[in-house]
Formats: sequence, C-alpha cells, structure tokens
Amino acid sequence: MTCDTYLEIAARKKAERDAKFKPEWLVPKDKLPGPEIKDVLEWPVTSGFLTAEEIAITEAGAPTILSKIKSKEWTAVEVASAFGHRATIAHQLTNCLSEIFFEEGLTMAKELDEYYATTGKLKGPLHGLPISLKDNLNIKGQPTSIGFVGFAFNPPKFEDDAVLVGMLREMGAVFYVKTNVPVAMMMPESINFIYGNTVNPFNRDLTAGGSSGGEAALIALKGSPIGIGSDIGGSLRIPAANQNLFTIRSSGGRFPTYGARSGLPGLESVNSVNGPISTSLDAVEFYSKTVIDGEPWLKDGKVIEMPWRDVDLPEKLTFGVIRDDGVVHPYPAVLRGLDHTVEKLREAGHEVIEWEPQDHERLDTIITEFFLSDGGEHCKEYAGLTGEPFFPYMEMYNKCKEKGVSELWDLHAERTTLMKRYIDRWAASASMTSTGKPIDAILMPVSPYSGVGHGKFRYVGYTAWVNALDYTAGTVPVLRADKSIDKKEADYVPKNSRDEENYALCDTDEVDGGPVSVQVVGRRLQEEKVLKMMRVVAKAVGTEKYWDDLGVLINYIYIYICMLVILQIAASALSIVSSQSPLH
Amino acid sequence: MTCDTYLEIAARKKAERDAKFKPEWLVPKDKLPGPEIKDVLEWPVTSGFLTAEEIAITEAGAPTILSKIKSKEWTAVEVASAFGHRATIAHQLTNCLSEIFFEEGLTMAKELDEYYATTGKLKGPLHGLPISLKDNLNIKGQPTSIGFVGFAFNPPKFEDDAVLVGMLREMGAVFYVKTNVPVAMMMPESINFIYGNTVNPFNRDLTAGGSSGGEAALIALKGSPIGIGSDIGGSLRIPAANQNLFTIRSSGGRFPTYGARSGLPGLESVNSVNGPISTSLDAVEFYSKTVIDGEPWLKDGKVIEMPWRDVDLPEKLTFGVIRDDGVVHPYPAVLRGLDHTVEKLREAGHEVIEWEPQDHERLDTIITEFFLSDGGEHCKEYAGLTGEPFFPYMEMYNKCKEKGVSELWDLHAERTTLMKRYIDRWAASASMTSTGKPIDAILMPVSPYSGVGHGKFRYVGYTAWVNALDYTAGTVPVLRADKSIDKKEADYVPKNSRDEENYALCDTDEVDGGPVSVQVVGRRLQEEKVLKMMRVVAKAVGTEKYWDDLGVLINYIYIYICMLVILQIAASALSIVSSQSPLH
Repeated sequence: MTCDTYLEIAARKKAERDAKFKPEWLVPKDKLPGPEIKDVLEWPVTSGFLTAEEIAITEAGAPTILSKIKSKEWTAVEVASAFGHRATIAHQLTNCLSEIFFEEGLTMAKELDEYYATTGKLKGPLHGLPISLKDNLNIKGQPTSIGFVGFAFNPPKFEDDAVLVGMLREMGAVFYVKTNVPVAMMMPESINFIYGNTVNPFNRDLTAGGSSGGEAALIALKGSPIGIGSDIGGSLRIPAANQNLFTIRSSGGRFPTYGARSGLPGLESVNSVNGPISTSLDAVEFYSKTVIDGEPWLKDGKVIEMPWRDVDLPEKLTFGVIRDDGVVHPYPAVLRGLDHTVEKLREAGHEVIEWEPQDHERLDTIITEFFLSDGGEHCKEYAGLTGEPFFPYMEMYNKCKEKGVSELWDLHAERTTLMKRYIDRWAASASMTSTGKPIDAILMPVSPYSGVGHGKFRYVGYTAWVNALDYTAGTVPVLRADKSIDKKEADYVPKNSRDEENYALCDTDEVDGGPVSVQVVGRRLQEEKVLKMMRVVAKAVGTEKYWDDLGVLINYIYIYICMLVILQIAASALSIVSSQSPLH
Repeated sequence: MTCDTYLEIAARKKAERDAKFKPEWLVPKDKLPGPEIKDVLEWPVTSGFLTAEEIAITEAGAPTILSKIKSKEWTAVEVASAFGHRATIAHQLTNCLSEIFFEEGLTMAKELDEYYATTGKLKGPLHGLPISLKDNLNIKGQPTSIGFVGFAFNPPKFEDDAVLVGMLREMGAVFYVKTNVPVAMMMPESINFIYGNTVNPFNRDLTAGGSSGGEAALIALKGSPIGIGSDIGGSLRIPAANQNLFTIRSSGGRFPTYGARSGLPGLESVNSVNGPISTSLDAVEFYSKTVIDGEPWLKDGKVIEMPWRDVDLPEKLTFGVIRDDGVVHPYPAVLRGLDHTVEKLREAGHEVIEWEPQDHERLDTIITEFFLSDGGEHCKEYAGLTGEPFFPYMEMYNKCKEKGVSELWDLHAERTTLMKRYIDRWAASASMTSTGKPIDAILMPVSPYSGVGHGKFRYVGYTAWVNALDYTAGTVPVLRADKSIDKKEADYVPKNSRDEENYALCDTDEVDGGPVSVQVVGRRLQEEKVLKMMRVVAKAVGTEKYWDDLGVLINYIYIYICMLVILQIAASALSIVSSQSPLH
C-alpha cells in the first residue's frame, strides 16, 4: 500500500520510464528543436543523430526489413537497435512512448540472430521485425496502464502475453516499446496523468489523436515500422489519419483480442478490435494476412474461423461518397482532400455516387450510450484507485447514470434495426450505380479535422458509426492542409449547435500542414476487400508510396545538409590552412 | 381494447386456430387413439386416413420431394396437400401446431406449379418444399405469439417476413403451419396458455421438449419434411433429441435471425440462432448449405460472410466423450446409448478419449444469469399485457432482480475467460490423442433424459454450455429406452441436491420407449465439419437411415393391416355369398 497522491505515483512512473532510455540514444536536451519548430517529421534524419545505416533501416518498410534480415544484409539486433534509437528521438519530439524495454528487445533480437545462425531457419514470418504495441496489450514482464495512474504499477508486470502478442512473438517479432494512450483509451487525444500528452509530428501544436496516438506519432517518425493499436470508436483511424498513416479497423473477430486491458472491460455491445498502423500499406496488408494465417481462432474463442481470402476487385469500383455526415461539417482541407480523391478515382475509371449518411447521427449517439451504459463504474473504480480526476473529455464517464440491463437490451434491439436498415440501403444502391451492383465502399472523411489543436477534438461521429455497425474501414493519406488554399466557408450555416461550436474552432492557420486522409468503409468482415480498395484509392491519389517518397525526400535533404556541412568544414579547413600559409 | 381475461383471449385464439383446419383432413374425434395409446409414431400411416400417395410423399425426405417435383412426378400442390393432411393428424395426436394457414400454403404451391409449367424453370432450390416454422419467425400475414397470450392478436399479422423466411420464400419453399412453443421460448417443454402442451409421439406421457417442441413432434410424425426451430440454450437440440431427430445448432451468425420475435429481445450476451430439424440428415445438411449459398450476410448485418465450406474429414476422427457433466447424472438409457455410440465409433476405427466437463457447471449458471439479467422485465411486460401468470418453469423470470450493466460487463469478462480456458483445453488435447492432433468433437448426451415426463425436465446444462461458448452442436438419434434393459444404478450417489432430485424423478417404466440421441459438439463456427461428423456417428450407430427404415417398417405394417382388412372383407363377402348359396 502506498499513501502517495496520484501525481506522486504518476511522477514516479514517468521517472521510471525516463530512466529506461539508453543514454547513448538520447539527443541532448539542448540539441532538440524548440517548441517553435512545429513540423518535426524530418528532424530525426536531418538532425544528424542517426547513422546512415540507422536511417537506411528505419526508412525501410516492414517487408524490406524482413527480406534484408533473411538475406543477412541486416541482423535483427541492428534493426532493433536502429528502431530503438529512432523511437527514442521520436519520443523526445512527441512524447509517444509509455513503456520502454529496449534491452529486452535487443535480447529478443540477439536470440533470433543466434537461432538463425545456428539453425539456418527463420523463427517465423516476422523474424526480427520490431513491432510497437499500444499500451493496452499485455506483454509478459511489463505493466499495462491504459492511461490510469492506478494501473501504473498494478500489476507491476503481467505474467502472460495477450494472445496476439504471443502469436507475434512466436512469429519472430521483436518488442521494445509500448505507446501512449488517453485514460481508459476513451478520448480522441492521447493524454493521461502519467505521461501527459502526445503531440503530432506534422505540427506539434496539434494533437496526435487517440486513442492509438502514441503509436501514430511514433510510426510517423519511423520509430517503428508497424504498430498495433485498437479501435472501439475510431481509435485506430483517428490517429492514423491525424498522421497520414495507413490502418485498418477490422470487424470484430478477425484479430485476437484476448489479453488486452480495457477501460470498459466486458463491454460487448461494441467490439473493440486491434489492428496495424504503418507508413506502408504493404505492411498493413502483410501483417493482417500473417496474423490470420496464424489461425488465431484456435487460440481466442472470439476470433472467427475465417482464413485469409484473396479478393479480385472489379476493374471499375463504385464508391458512395459522404462529404458531410449531416451532423458536423468537415474542415476545408478535409473537403478538398475528399474532392481531390473523388476526382482522381473518377479519372482512374471508377464510379463515385453521392451517399446519404442516413442514421449516422443515431449510430454515433447509440454507441456513446453503450460506452456509458455501466454508468462509468469501471472507469470510476480505476480512477478511484489513486483519486485521479477525470479529464474534461472523460467527464461524462463520471457523471452518467448506470443503465439497467433491460434498457440496454432495448438499445441492442434498436441497433439491430439500424444494422438492418443500413445493409438494406447498401444492397439497394444497386439501383443507383451504372454497374447495377451495390456500391463497393463508402468514401468519407475520417474526422472533420485536417489536424486539430489540443483539446479541440469534439466529434468522432465520422468513425464511430462504423463501430456501431461493426463494419470494416481503412484510412488512406491524401494531402496536407494548406492555409493558402483551405479557407473556411464564409457563408456556411451550421446545422446545429455542435456543428456551430466545432466550425467556430476551425482555425486554418493553426491546422496548416495538418494531414488529411480519407476513410474507405466496407461492409462487415470485408477486410481483404477494403485493403485492396485502399490500395486503389492510394494509387489514384498518388499516396501509395507517400512515405517512401517522403523518405527519399528526407534522405535528399540529409545528403544536402551533410554536403553543406562537409563543404563548410572544408572551407574552414582551407581558410585555416590558407591563414596559416607561409605565403601570408 | 379488450377487457377479456387472458384465458378468454387464449380460448378465442385457440378456437380461431381450430377453425382453420380443413374438415376433410381432420380425423373424426372418435377415431383418434385414446390416451392409453402412448406411442403414436406409426398411427398417421396405420390408421388408414392417408392415401397411398400422401404416405409416399410424406415418407419421402426433402431431397426426394424436390427431385420428384422437378421431374414432375409430384406437383407442389400434391406435396403441400399431403403434408397439410398429415400435419393435421400429427396435430390431433400431439397438439403441435400454433398457426395454421393451409390455404395460403396451397396457393403458394399452386403459384409454384404454374410458374414451373409456364416458364419451365424452378423458382429456386426449395421449389415446392413445405417448411414448417417455429412460432417465433415472423411471416407476413400471420401473427407470432411465442406463447404469450398478449401476442396472440398483437399484431394480428406481420407486414414483413423475417429475413430467413423471405429467403426461403424466394427459394420456393411453401409455408403452411407454425408450431407450438413454450411461453417466451424459455422453457424445455412446449406449453403455454393459448395452445397448452405439445406431447411426444414416441410416448405421449412424455414431453416433446422445448422450445422447438411443436416442430419436433410434427416432424417425427412426418407432418413436415423439415422445420425451422431456434436454440438459445438447447431449444433445437432438446426437442430434436426428444424425438430422435437430426438438428444442428450453429454458432451465431451463420443463419439470419432478423425478424424473429423473442421473449428476451435485445439479449446479445447469448446468441439465439435458428436451424433445421428433420428426420433426414441429408435434409439438414442440404438446408444449411442452401441457406448459406443464398448469401444471407447481404440481408442481415449480423450474419458472418462465410460461404459454405467443403470439409474433408480425416479418416480417423477423435472424440472426447462426456458421460456425466459433473452436475446431473444421465438416465440409464442415455448412458447405454452413449456407450453404444462409443463402442460403434471405436469399431469403425475412430478414437474416443474421456473428456472432463471442466467449467460446465459455471457455463450453465452464467448463461442463466444472462437470460435473467433484465430482471425478467421483458417477459413481465409481455405477460402483463393480459395478466397471464408465470408457469413454474418461468417463475424465476418473475422473481429475479434486474442487473446493472456494470455487473453484466463483469459477467461478460468472466465468460471471455471461460471461453479462453475451453479453447486452450481443446488445443491442448493434442497431447492426449494418438494422432497428436486436438479432438475433432465432443460426444455427449443432449440431456440427462431418455424422454421425460411432463414437468420433470429439470436440467439443460448438457446443451446450455454450448450456447455459452457459442459452439456448434448437432444431435444424432441412437436408440430408444427399454425398461427391460435400462435399470437405475442402485448404488448411485448423487453429486448434489439437484442431481439427487433429478435422479429420484427417473422412472424407467415411465420413459420406456423414449428416444436417446447423442450430441456432437464442435468448436465455434464448425457447422460443416459437425454435420459431416454427425454423419460419421449416425453411420456408426446405424441411424443415418433411421427414419427411412422406420418408414419402410411403417409401410410394411400398413400393407399388412390393409391385407388383413382385405382378407377380412373377402372372408365376409365369401361367407355372405356362401350363406346365400342356393346349395344351402
């Protein structure tokens, strides 16, 4: 027992984390960019603290890393070390990490190298690949705090891996960090009393989003080639979109969830799922197939026995586009990104029809009712362990009243009707398309925001309706906000007070450079098809290799800076030499 | 508004049903067997009220019926008429029907015949096949009372088919009856205040079981070639086993459920599923494949997009056998049937290992907690519509206290752990088998009963654990109880008071001739494999053609009786002739 206050416990935990950084990987504080430097995406490379090999490794996508380990070009230790170093820098820039276990990761990598050297065999399809984990997945030997101070040391370490973590371990993955989340993972920004807030590397005045915000910031800075987040109302898609990353929110039952800690444990009205986030769509697809090929249904009774399905897309796809969900109007850059996507898809020969967001408002409110149906009892219990207060975003968990099960059943029945209505509308869209077939996907914003300032993320309805229906949805990066182009609609008439408040908060100066992604939504359990459609969209808008291109750019900048430095050194040397010349 | 009492409303509803019988199909009351005739299985044939063609049609299984309609040997009207007639007799023997719409069925059949004659095409894979429906599936133009007096005329008719009913209709099925259920479908005997009790045609002193008891009695008497029941705790398997029929309880999400009425609407902690019951395993398999081939996931958002899977079974299967679930001991004939099955499977080259029923008691009690978690509010509301009292079996719904959602979540979390433990044990069974692979199925009783007297069905734990885990389970008929062989174990020491009470109620004289079936349980979503394994078990014990053999036997008896009658008439005629001979 401890009589420490929640702030004292939080401080102790944070200090413990900070002590786990390897000093040789930390950038000296005085060398870090100041708060006036908003966009730090290129900083890990351009700052010169990473070696050329570390840059080469961390700029490579997961498939390349795996093949270079296999071909013995890189060792698992070299890879783990490179990502450990870059993750350290990413953290110094954005505060994205919660648990740090670099030494354990290096030990795992060493064992994998030895295994490969001894047997000539790879341990599995993920041999040597570093994978970062959101701080809700239990991993043996580490705690899982999900943002609650009361869980910081409680238990001090888990005895067992979550099913997914165990599978990835068996497949040869290397674990080295867990990433920051909001309290209970029920806020759209990754903030808590232990670690504070994770900021957005595109613009550090903006939030990384949540709840998988630590993951997304880390991955955007290439401190991890692939990370596992989770999504119960948008928690994969919001941070992925906020960092222009690829992710997929599967329907419940594709990926194993057993052994994840939850702020709302036992909630079954909404499926919390986990999934990959990456700069690489290849990595997201490869990971998804690899996990499913591992037959997770033999290890987690809630996983559906559905092997990976190869999908042939029709040459001409039909998308239904939602530009505004009828509740909250998107920011200007979001609409521009969507228009751009529609235009590019049409140019590529696909069909795009307008899709009415019928029932979306109710789908958003009903899912909130499910979240709050225990009267916040579980969150209150966990917060009560240390007396930590509720953040404003979470205040409703403190104030809501517990429902009786009878009322919950009535909500379930209503949701079942909403599911039926949506699926019928989807089928009926056959009469609206030129192919005579229903739409293949819905194309829409991931949120109203092209990035958003801290504390201003007010509306998750663009993602939550997907969870209410248990549909499949992925994010695709499109572009970045540009204050010179993206202007607020002067004549926009808000639809309601929520919309009014949200639009009033839109400051195109503030969100300048913020990322814009689109959401590709398929029906339930359409993961393979949605991934394939994400590729179609990404190809159309030219972002399939967005991060590779960014990497090339970053490398060019790096080389340019190096050359400047070399030239300067040479010039200095020359001037010293000439100044010392006996001819003077 | 009516001020009638529940008994008056019930009587009015029953009279309305009775008025819908076609007089020409009804057996005169004085020609019906008296209550002293317990076993009426053969009566519809041997009584002489059916024509030879009606017998031929109704003794045929669903696949034969479909092929004979296709080959134009039989018309859909002939088939509908034969089953209408036999269903009428089945009802007179067991009280199995609730809603009757023979005329509508004949009209459907006529339209199908006309369609076929005009177009030369069958409407679908079920063209002309009569299908009986449990009285929880909505069908347009009929009410759905699920045993509540308050629903007898409320609404007087539904506007829409349930998704499943609509699919079957599109496929060419003919609907003509709905079948009796217990109040709210939450009792193991099919009794309610409207229609009373459905009795067992194997022995009318025994219950047909529930909640799909009307279906099972009707089908055992071949008043329907295939019927749709539902199962939330054993409601398909208990009546199927009680009538030695084939059925399969799928996991949630294989068959569409939208548009079914429930006594516990909105309950999602346990999946209520529907499925086929038939005398023919071929029919059960054919139906399952046909519905799934109809892509129900495009019409019901809760159906999993999982096309029919062809399964190759290993030559040698491994079964884990549960003889006693550790809570309530089975009746002697049940144990004999199970021993017989094990012996026959071993003779056929399969492996059978002992399987410990770990956690079964808790799985049974936790599912009951889920059923009661709304505090019986919904059942009380529905009973309250007319003031009907609760049956003793349902008294707990009247007395239980509503749970808060917080407690429900904790139960969900516990069940998740139980699911994990079971799946881990299943996987770990690889170390117990000679193949080094996990068991393929669990083989066990369907209930402790080889038939059971009215009001004595005290324990559903043998089926309910399957629902708690959402596993797949089918029933296979094995034999019938025989009081000359099946003796109570004199030295049996009950495990607990429930066991003691249940075993004390066992009266081997009373259950003489009662059916014994076994249950074949697969993991979640193993429908195709379980069906294949059911066939292996049925072949091993020689019951794959149980009902065909019974049909042949019945036909022989019929022919024998006809010949006796003819001989007697001939003898009488001869004696008259001889008495009138001028030679006298």
